[in-house]
Amino acid sequence: MKFAVVVGSTETATIEGISAAGAVPEATYHTPAADLEIVEYGKPVFAPQMPVSPTGCPTPALITRAVRELVSFDTVAVESGLVTESATPTVTVGDKPGADIRSNKPVPDATERFERARAVGRALNDEELIIGESIPGGTTTALGVLTALGEPYNVSSSLPENPIERKQELVNAGLEASSIEAGALAGEPLKAITLMGDPVLPAVLGLTVGANERGIDVMLAGGTQMVTAGALARHFGVQDELRVATTVFVADDTPELHQASDELAFDLTVTDPGFDQSSHDALTGFCRGEAKEGVGMGGALALADRNGVSDKELRQQIVRRYEAVTDGP
Amino acid sequence: MKFAVVVGSTETATIEGISAAGAVPEATYHTPAADLEIVEYGKPVFAPQMPVSPTGCPTPALITRAVRELVSFDTVAVESGLVTESATPTVTVGDKPGADIRSNKPVPDATERFERARAVGRALNDEELIIGESIPGGTTTALGVLTALGEPYNVSSSLPENPIERKQELVNAGLEASSIEAGALAGEPLKAITLMGDPVLPAVLGLTVGANERGIDVMLAGGTQMVTAGALARHFGVQDELRVATTVFVADDTPELHQASDELAFDLTVTDPGFDQSSHDALTGFCRGEAKEGVGMGGALALADRNGVSDKELRQQIVRRYEAVTDGP
Repeated sequence: MKFAVVVGSTETATIEGISAAGAVPEATYHTPAADLEIVEYGKPVFAPQMPVSPTGCPTPALITRAVRELVSFDTVAVESGLVTESATPTVTVGDKPGADIRSNKPVPDATERFERARAVGRALNDEELIIGESIPGGTTTALGVLTALGEPYNVSSSLPENPIERKQELVNAGLEASSIEAGALAGEPLKAITLMGDPVLPAVLGLTVGANERGIDVMLAGGTQMVTAGALARHFGVQDELRVATTVFVADDTPELHQASDELAFDLTVTDPGFDQSSHDALTGFCRGEAKEGVGMGGALALADRNGVSDKELRQQIVRRYEAVTDGP
Repeated sequence: MKFAVVVGSTETATIEGISAAGAVPEATYHTPAADLEIVEYGKPVFAPQMPVSPTGCPTPALITRAVRELVSFDTVAVESGLVTESATPTVTVGDKPGADIRSNKPVPDATERFERARAVGRALNDEELIIGESIPGGTTTALGVLTALGEPYNVSSSLPENPIERKQELVNAGLEASSIEAGALAGEPLKAITLMGDPVLPAVLGLTVGANERGIDVMLAGGTQMVTAGALARHFGVQDELRVATTVFVADDTPELHQASDELAFDLTVTDPGFDQSSHDALTGFCRGEAKEGVGMGGALALADRNGVSDKELRQQIVRRYEAVTDGP
């Protein structure tokens, strides 16, 4: 099994009020590189600190890392438009961050990024590929892509109050800037990403398609962004089983999750790590509805389950890791 | 144990007649990225083909990969001035290739690259770090650095006839362009790299220093370029044990190897994989004195030895891998 984490940036993340993946909007540019370092080394290396939400909820990378400490697994990091260098080894499938969704072509070279990631997926020698992501602002671009494809689903949010009307407004501005109508790009997944997406989506799609061509089982580890990646794969023509693994935090936030999974024929796993049993800062933010998902958290929790790790053991490991990173308690 | 492969490029490689790491000088720009892919995936992925010498001797990456198939080990790829993208995950410690050794400052940001690699070395959680390299033209810049440090050793070559006079001439031109005398930079390893080196050397030095600070044992896997990296570490002030592992092909080419190891207090291993027992194209080039080393080959052979792999088993695996890559026999 290989655990891929695909990271990148989009200028969409710096629009006020749409992402909790950083204490202030500009901090989101450091988040994906820091997330990779936490998964790889257990702590930030080049990055100045662990990403936290405005109220201090830690990045889900911490949970993925804690699971990795309990259930060792190999990773591959794929970079598509990182703004900062990461100390984690990455395959670069594209250099530039995505532009604002309200521009004409936020990911002009989506096809090239897709093809590179597809070559990586085809080159893997694993039976199973789990794919997570980290891209602040990614749910907004996911909504943009779903809308362009004509898939009528909502997206989740890293904020406790999902600013869904604001996202819809941005998507509408994006459709207008790209001169398309909702649903106009059904069956054209790469065009949908080019005109409405972010740089992480072509990389996740490429890995998915390449791994599928190679006969590798794919688990999309994440919430509505991964539902979007799965929808893109269906529109591309992938007919084999696709699994989606996410958290109860996303499922609670996005009632359409089950409907989308049924209609797109995903095999859906929703895990509940029982964070409500804890009063530790490392975990309570998630119960307030922050972060919810990301950096493959849902897939990591599913892996922990599969390997018989108890929720209690997992919570203890997350707290130990949190304290090691923050020099607490 | 972690096996690091540090790759990069220098314009020095395109000077006619100094490197065999590509069928023609310009092809050397693809070599380091292709080498990484062979170690990671067993074959080129983004790269157009497996690097070979002008007469068809395969890259030593093939040997390192074959050992990895027999004796599984974790790798980390570090990139310092690659010209092409690689499908292998890499930590980027610097973007730009090195300039021609005959210019004033071929690696102006050597210190920054060193510090990034040092942070990576310090972040590792392994007991042992083996470091290999791939940078066409690297023996010429190694000679430049040794000369600047005042270390009186010769360097090896990837060509059967070592063009040592030509290298010396280029080094002299480099000293002049940098306005320094031979031996002027003793005790100033980063300045020696800045004025006379290539982008891979600060990365290897940084990994070595960082790992040493972390208490990790370091094995420099390679020939005279790794002797140079070890010399740089000594001039930096590293006093702990440093191992150097290389091949009989380098030892035969460079009589000073043992003397240098003694004087710089390296623990030297020289392995002979018995390629003269074979008449297969994958191996005979090495016996004609081509390639000799690179991509950690000497360290991989030492690892194979340590794990009880017989020379015959190893040769068979190399041939299988060669045929898989070239679609032979």
